[in-house]
Formats: sequence, C-alpha cells, structure tokens
Amino acid sequence: MRPSLQEARSLQQTLAGHASAIESTLDRLIAPVAGGEARLIEAMRYATLGGGKRLRGFLVVESAALFGATGAGALRAAASVEMLHAYSLVHDDLPCMDDDDLRRGQPSTHRRFDEATATLAGDALQTLAFEVIAAPATHPDPAIRIALVQALASASGAAGMVGGQMIDMEGEGRSLALPEVERLHALKTGRLIRYGAEAGAILGGASAAEHERLAAYGRDIGAAFQVADDVLDATASEAELGKTAGKDQEAGKSTFVSLLGIDGARDAARRLADAAVSHLEPFGERAAILRDLARHVVDRRS
Amino acid sequence: MRPSLQEARSLQQTLAGHASAIESTLDRLIAPVAGGEARLIEAMRYATLGGGKRLRGFLVVESAALFGATGAGALRAAASVEMLHAYSLVHDDLPCMDDDDLRRGQPSTHRRFDEATATLAGDALQTLAFEVIAAPATHPDPAIRIALVQALASASGAAGMVGGQMIDMEGEGRSLALPEVERLHALKTGRLIRYGAEAGAILGGASAAEHERLAAYGRDIGAAFQVADDVLDATASEAELGKTAGKDQEAGKSTFVSLLGIDGARDAARRLADAAVSHLEPFGERAAILRDLARHVVDRRS
Repeated sequence: MRPSLQEARSLQQTLAGHASAIESTLDRLIAPVAGGEARLIEAMRYATLGGGKRLRGFLVVESAALFGATGAGALRAAASVEMLHAYSLVHDDLPCMDDDDLRRGQPSTHRRFDEATATLAGDALQTLAFEVIAAPATHPDPAIRIALVQALASASGAAGMVGGQMIDMEGEGRSLALPEVERLHALKTGRLIRYGAEAGAILGGASAAEHERLAAYGRDIGAAFQVADDVLDATASEAELGKTAGKDQEAGKSTFVSLLGIDGARDAARRLADAAVSHLEPFGERAAILRDLARHVVDRRS
Repeated sequence: MRPSLQEARSLQQTLAGHASAIESTLDRLIAPVAGGEARLIEAMRYATLGGGKRLRGFLVVESAALFGATGAGALRAAASVEMLHAYSLVHDDLPCMDDDDLRRGQPSTHRRFDEATATLAGDALQTLAFEVIAAPATHPDPAIRIALVQALASASGAAGMVGGQMIDMEGEGRSLALPEVERLHALKTGRLIRYGAEAGAILGGASAAEHERLAAYGRDIGAAFQVADDVLDATASEAELGKTAGKDQEAGKSTFVSLLGIDGARDAARRLADAAVSHLEPFGERAAILRDLARHVVDRRS
C-alpha cells in the first residue's frame, strides 16, 4: 500500500513541478495594478500565491494529461480551481466564520489586510476563477469552456462547497452521525477536489464513461483526503500543519477521529484511497501518477 | 424631457410586469431545500426576493427584446444579474463593509440571519448567477452562453464592480476629484448596469456595432442612475428610500452632490440620460421603452 521510494520521489517531483507551473500561471493571471484597487489585487495575490499543495490544480493537470490534453489550457483550469479554493479559505478564515489567524504558517488574509479587503478579495477571486476558464485561451471550443463553468459552479455553490460550509457551521456544538459527517465533507472539501479530476476529463474530451471514472476517483480521493486531514489535525503539531491544530475538536465538531478513533480513521482513509485507485483500472500505466497520489494523500505528514 | 403621463404609465406597467416575471424566475431558481443547508437557501431567498426595482434585469429583457429575443432565456439572464446584484448588496451591508442595518426597508441579511450566513449566501448567489447563465436553458448556443459568462465576470470582478467597491472604501475620509468619483461609480454600480444592456444584445445576437450602442447606452444610464442616487440620498427621507439616508455624507465620502451641488448634479444626470437616449437613435420606435427608462432613472423619487 505504502508507495516505494522510487514512486514517492517521482510523485514528489511531479507535484513540485506542477505546483511551480500553477504558481507562475496564477502570478500572471493576477497581475498587480495601480490605483485605488491596488490593495484588492495585492490581497488576491497574498491569498493565492506562495504555496499550498495545489492538490486541486494537480488533479486538473494530471487528469487532462490522461486524455492527451497538456499545456496552457490545463494550467489555466488548474489556476482557476486554485483561485476558487483560495477564495473559500479567505472567507472561511474571517472572524464571523472560523476566525482563524493563521493560514499556511502566515497571517490569514484579513489579519494581513483587513476584513473588508479580505471579503472583497474572496469575492473577486471567485469571479476571476470563472473568468479564467471562460476565456478562449483555456480551450478553443466554447462547449468545453461552458461545461467547465457549469461543473465549477455546481461544485462550489449552495449544492456543493458553500452548502457544505453551511452544514458545517450548523453542526457546531452538536454531535453528528457518521453519514452526516461524510455528506458534510463530500460537499465542503470533496466536491472541489472531485471537480479537479472532472475538469481534466472535460478538457481532454473524455467519453461519458471515462468522465464518470474520473469523477468517482475524485470523489474517493477527496473523501480520503478529509479523513486523513482529521487524523493529522488530531496528531500533528501546529508547526507541521502551518495552521491552528485541534480547532475542530475545540469547536465541538464531530470528526472522523471522534467517530472512528485514530486507527479506525486511518483504516477508513486507506480503504477510500484503494477505492479511488480501483476507478483508474482501465487506464493502466498511464494513470500511475494519479494512483501514487491516492496513496500519498493518506500517508502525508502535513 | 420629463415623460408624458401616457409614457410614464406604459413604462411603469412594463417595469412592474418585468419585475414580476423576474421575481417568479428567481423564486423558481432558488428553491427551498431541507437539511443543514436550508438556512443558506433561506438567506439567499431573503436577499434576492421581495422587490427592488430590478433595473439590471429590466435592461436585459428589454435589450434582448430589441433584437427579437424574448422568453425564458432572457428572464434567466435577468434573474442571474439580479442574483449578482443581490450578492453585492449582502456583502456591502456587512459590518466590516458599509455596516448597514436596513435594505429595502427591511433588516439587511446579516441582521435577519447572522454574519456567517450572510457571507455564505452572498458567495453562493454569485456562484448561482454564473450557473444560471451557463445552463442550456438560457440559450441553446454554448458560444452565446460563454459570452454572457465572460461579460458578467468582467463586469463584476476586480476590474469592475468589486474593484469599484474597493476604490470606494479606499476613498473614505479623504476628498476625491470628480474624475475619480466618476470612475469609482462607473465601476461600482455602472458596470453591472451596462452589463444588463449588453447581455440582452448578446442574447439577441446583435452585431458588434449594435452591441457597442447598447453598451454605451448602459454605461450612460448607469452613470445617470448613480448621479440621481446621490441627489436622492441628499434630498429624500429614509422612509422614501427604504434604506439609511445620508450615509455617504456621514462617512465623509465625496459624492456628485458634494462636488457639483444639488442643481449641478440634477443637470448632470439629465445630460447623461440624454446621452444614453442618443445611442438608441438607429433603433427608432422599437427602443421607446429604453428611452423612457433613461428619463425615469433621473426623475424617480426612490
């Protein structure tokens, strides 16, 4: 189950390479400006640039490559989903939401700037995510671009990520059963991770059956990611995480660890990673990196 | 300049008819749900339904009709821009932004619900605005739908509405010159009003020259609207406005009234309405309602 040393090295190199290409794309797409709106763009850049695992963007690039789509279009779609993800983090960190001062080991956007600027920067990052995938540079065929817009909207709106965030807040202070916690995370973090895998399939012109396989892979890897995140939150230090640790527990939230125990949650994460890998079976060796990623997601240390 | 009684009646009837059709469309597109996300949808409905002038949606419907496009698609695009507008009002009213307790004579969304729910409802309304125009029910041609997405993103993001909001906040407490105030409002309120007129042209398959005329009409009517708004803010009562009056003055913001005086601002609004009307000249009688609207915008009492 645990990847061999050689697999791990190759995945790490690919992760680092894609993260760097996505970073450059983001840097170019959110260019500094002069004038009264300069502070807005600065905050958008602060919230988006300078790291993160770029898991969602990585999935776009590797899933697109599976269908032969490489180059600027896939990187734009990858940058777009990272903007969407960054907007959600900026708003989640606000005092009226999770009230978090730290993000990736740095002051969160409203701490570095102010609440109003952070609210607006999140708003504008969401808009820019749609603007970037809608532009002809992403793909010459408008039908492909509109399919990306529809998939991103469906993954991130009230029936997706934002709906999950609302369920999460409504659940604070009372205990949720396992199916409720699963649904919450399938929406809150899972839908955008699933979108990453789907976006690549859309860009690559995958068949309906292939698209379904990538969506199922994305769904299961998203679930594995969240279960592993709960394990890390319960076991790793703040320095390792680069964010406040143990917050969910303090907020009285039900987590996979509180419901299954640490070992139970670790097992669940591995089973989900195995399920993710199983959907890739028809793609054979071409999907090696996506398979390695599934294992990495549950074995990571931060 | 002031519309005749018959013109006024006909415009009022058309405004009321379109507002009612847009309201039904919004009601259908933001349907209540059960579960932990119920409160989110409730807040989205609260922020969007139950009135407002629907100026932006009206522009979509009438501009589309000018090119022979009527029916469900135009109403969906009209509902979409009203969702986008509603999201901007919900976030603008937040304590960290304009801190406004009243909107359309009712508690603002964060006062009726809470700040976190209002933040998320605004986020999800923005997403839904894009989701609605991207769906095939808006227009069978993906190229038309993607053009709407691009135009809406460009009008509402960092280089449009949200950029204008940032400039507005940066300008608080210091005095701005007229060109700065003009640019601020051209972005903050003008771009989305202009988008309304453009969206109709896009839906109706207007030529590039016709599209330009509608964009210019939308730009000038948007400017006229804002100048007239400053006049109303300085002269009308809170009961007439349905929102807190005189707030801009209190916040030390430069307005068209502080820069031009009441009479100067009234004249400027009329000149802008005349300019808006001049762009419609080639459309003759078919554009009668859009012409009447330009006059109404500067002569309204609320």
